[in-house]
Amino acid sequence: MKPIVCSVRVEAGPPGLHDNTADLDRLQQALRAILADDRSLAIPFERMVPVARVFRESGFAGYALLNNQDQGWVLADFLANRPQIIAGMALDLGTTHLEATLLDMEGGNILAEGNLENRQISFGADILSRIHYATAKRRQQKQPAPDFLDPGLHELQQIIISAINELAGQLANKAGLKLDEIRALSVSGNTTMSHLFLGVDPYHICREPYIPLFNRPPALEAAQLGLAIHRAAPVWIMPSVGSYFGGDLVSGILACGMAQSDKTRMLIDVGTNAEVVLGNSEWLIACAGAAGPALEGGVARMGMRAGPGAIEYVTIDPLSYKMEYRTIDGVPPRGICGSGLIDLVAALYLTQLIDIRGKIRDPNKERDQARAAFMKTHILERDGVRSFIVAGKKESFQGQEVLLEQIDLDAMIRSKAAMYAVLKTLISQVGLDFSDIEEIAVAGAFGRHINPERAITLGMLPDLPLSVYRAIGNSSLRGAEKVLLDRAARLACEEIVSSITYLELNVNQEFMIRFSGSRFIPHTDSSLFPSVPSFSGIE
Amino acid sequence: MKPIVCSVRVEAGPPGLHDNTADLDRLQQALRAILADDRSLAIPFERMVPVARVFRESGFAGYALLNNQDQGWVLADFLANRPQIIAGMALDLGTTHLEATLLDMEGGNILAEGNLENRQISFGADILSRIHYATAKRRQQKQPAPDFLDPGLHELQQIIISAINELAGQLANKAGLKLDEIRALSVSGNTTMSHLFLGVDPYHICREPYIPLFNRPPALEAAQLGLAIHRAAPVWIMPSVGSYFGGDLVSGILACGMAQSDKTRMLIDVGTNAEVVLGNSEWLIACAGAAGPALEGGVARMGMRAGPGAIEYVTIDPLSYKMEYRTIDGVPPRGICGSGLIDLVAALYLTQLIDIRGKIRDPNKERDQARAAFMKTHILERDGVRSFIVAGKKESFQGQEVLLEQIDLDAMIRSKAAMYAVLKTLISQVGLDFSDIEEIAVAGAFGRHINPERAITLGMLPDLPLSVYRAIGNSSLRGAEKVLLDRAARLACEEIVSSITYLELNVNQEFMIRFSGSRFIPHTDSSLFPSVPSFSGIE
Repeated sequence: MKPIVCSVRVEAGPPGLHDNTADLDRLQQALRAILADDRSLAIPFERMVPVARVFRESGFAGYALLNNQDQGWVLADFLANRPQIIAGMALDLGTTHLEATLLDMEGGNILAEGNLENRQISFGADILSRIHYATAKRRQQKQPAPDFLDPGLHELQQIIISAINELAGQLANKAGLKLDEIRALSVSGNTTMSHLFLGVDPYHICREPYIPLFNRPPALEAAQLGLAIHRAAPVWIMPSVGSYFGGDLVSGILACGMAQSDKTRMLIDVGTNAEVVLGNSEWLIACAGAAGPALEGGVARMGMRAGPGAIEYVTIDPLSYKMEYRTIDGVPPRGICGSGLIDLVAALYLTQLIDIRGKIRDPNKERDQARAAFMKTHILERDGVRSFIVAGKKESFQGQEVLLEQIDLDAMIRSKAAMYAVLKTLISQVGLDFSDIEEIAVAGAFGRHINPERAITLGMLPDLPLSVYRAIGNSSLRGAEKVLLDRAARLACEEIVSSITYLELNVNQEFMIRFSGSRFIPHTDSSLFPSVPSFSGIE
Repeated sequence: MKPIVCSVRVEAGPPGLHDNTADLDRLQQALRAILADDRSLAIPFERMVPVARVFRESGFAGYALLNNQDQGWVLADFLANRPQIIAGMALDLGTTHLEATLLDMEGGNILAEGNLENRQISFGADILSRIHYATAKRRQQKQPAPDFLDPGLHELQQIIISAINELAGQLANKAGLKLDEIRALSVSGNTTMSHLFLGVDPYHICREPYIPLFNRPPALEAAQLGLAIHRAAPVWIMPSVGSYFGGDLVSGILACGMAQSDKTRMLIDVGTNAEVVLGNSEWLIACAGAAGPALEGGVARMGMRAGPGAIEYVTIDPLSYKMEYRTIDGVPPRGICGSGLIDLVAALYLTQLIDIRGKIRDPNKERDQARAAFMKTHILERDGVRSFIVAGKKESFQGQEVLLEQIDLDAMIRSKAAMYAVLKTLISQVGLDFSDIEEIAVAGAFGRHINPERAITLGMLPDLPLSVYRAIGNSSLRGAEKVLLDRAARLACEEIVSSITYLELNVNQEFMIRFSGSRFIPHTDSSLFPSVPSFSGIE
């Protein structure tokens, strides 16, 4: 009875002249005898008649579907026959993508998986522009009426609701279920997405001092939001910590098990920001840094999100200089994604095609013949600025060669420096060393695709045994799955939110010093990376 | 903070870069620090935006209106300025009348009073015919669909809702308030009226074994029922004990203070049935008998409810035989109500115009001259059946003389016998004597108008000092007022419901024997009524 919705068999005797308990009181009593705890048990007004009818017509027996809400038990439905399956939908409500799984709430099995683009993108690629869109009318009013609803906000909310309904339809279809057999929904998203999902004014999220309207979401049922799943399905939303520390990250902390472990663990989630959390069951400390853009579509001109045609893996043999790459779905390359970029830059360093600052070497000064030959065909110089040709015109999508320009490399070096500086600052903050960390969970597409060895080569991740690193995939979605299935996980989220300490790096001196020291490959202090070959020489 | 809704002053500091608690979390924290208990505190979804706006625009300070629900605290509203008044409406939802008071929830003062006919009467004068009407379509279906709503039920519900809205409008108007300044409603009604109020199927209430759909009502807010008072006003409905033991009686028990007293008290409420409860804080026992009809509009041909033109008081001087009566509102008499009937029959007995069986004496056999003269003008004989002329054609409304026929007298004797037998059976059941009762509270119009002395003369009420009797008026309404103002009273209702024992008189041998013995004035055993003159002789 830990899932957020469960079915229990009820068998109450029939009433008689000497047992004239009212129908719903009879049902309440029977349920009370079954429930393990003495939290309140509510039969909501609108369910009284249908529940009482089925209960009576099934001979005062049947199956009660109970929502295990934070505030207590709520009767969601009453069925004459045992439900074949009780399905729950876990949703990662991302800024760019929605990713969901449909779970069997009794066994925890995955019944179906699916994803969808977040169509809010057409109203703003990033969070800030969506807040702008959602508050267009509201911004014209100094003091909007208490119940003023901005049409832009309503529009963005409806886009999410329809997208969730569409995704729920896909999942139900794949699992051979009807939509209203989905009896629970958990949602993990950043703070702004959670506000937009509820249609709640996000105005102050992006204005100093950056205060969300809520961090702890209210108890909700699907019908209140216009969701097409079962109308009484509980909608459980991950709480957030602040405007820039959302439920998605809380979900990740839950997913990696950090807050339940005695040993210290670290979670690295690279999206638009690199978000890092360190801690154990006693304490949690977190920070975020702008380490992400170089690794996603943001900074590198040929950079792109992990998708078809993205180069996700690259090697260059240090002796033969034979270069190999692999694209997602094996189609002609259109760009390079985070993991490909890390592989590539590490390979360029190991083959000494770039120096320790990440600068592309001058092919004309190269003395090694094999390397010089490779450089001739792969290094391009225009207006005194060099680029590395990852894939030539002939092999690329629509004849657009995939280039790594010096400016991209510089951004990459800044990103990796920021990442390492973040990790180092965080670990120092608590007086520990990297070697004290039991596990480093790497989340997201970044975690799924990168080779930690290559990230270590760059000095992006600390030089620890590879067994310390674990890719945990979409940790936001994994956390959302956990809360569907386990009340302890739901309670743990509240503990995570209230125990976490947020370290502000923008004003952190130590971080700035560490950042400077990290702008070499692997690091100014190469003794920190004993497993990485060090080369000397700056051009 | 005991009322069902209260206002509390909140002063939270403003947020800052080092205090980035979300707006609603900030409000929650500030409220938590004020609340005396650790019950849950919910900010419902639909109130998030307006509450957060006012809170922020008032400088993170203001007045929170909190519903003190059984399940926990619920934020109903947030105001920048202290509300002038917080009004709550207590309603006695009677089968024939709605009676209500508007209370100042902070001081408990009555701001306004009002009443309205229950317009459901045109769909059925009594409960049974209304259940019939409300289930007309449903009865055609062996197994109605779980969510089937009978149009008759919906119609009856809407009639109540509009009536309450109209009454609320009247009250608000009298008190100089707006409708949405009424921020709470308590409702006390019998079990069927409670079902009709919620639009909940009453089908099984009148079918053996007479099981209501609910006794314990759900938590409700005004908007859920279409009430025109403040949409977040809690609607607190008195729980009932069973189909024939409604919330109105539970309310009466609460009002007379019986369940909170160490000493034993009795409550007598005469409506359609005579409902009697005996008990103290340790135990409660109740029963109902058909003692009412003779006292209300039901049985006596000239009987009527206490209303304009009803004879409510009668005396006959035992020496001069001068008869005096008083009608309600002083208008020409149209009939006789319960209290008038009791006065009249007691006077007829004391002047020996009827014998101890309640039979009208033969004027021709009368030897006392004064009495014989009076009888000549006041006793009518048609077809061998005698009647007593209470008011002649000249003085009556529309020249319709007000008569007390022998058949009415017989019914009255049965009623008074039933009443005494009920009381005696109840007191014997617990091994007590009438003299052990600290107080007998007499509720309703019956209690307000009757003279206990006359009822004792008839042997209807036990021969106790008059100081034992207390008229408590509309006890159903008084209880509804109590629950608005005091959480302890709300909790007490649940205790009353779960502790009460119901004595079924229809199958009680002892009751039948006592009933026979009580069919004389004052009683077969006149030693039970030492204060009443006893006369002998049966014609």
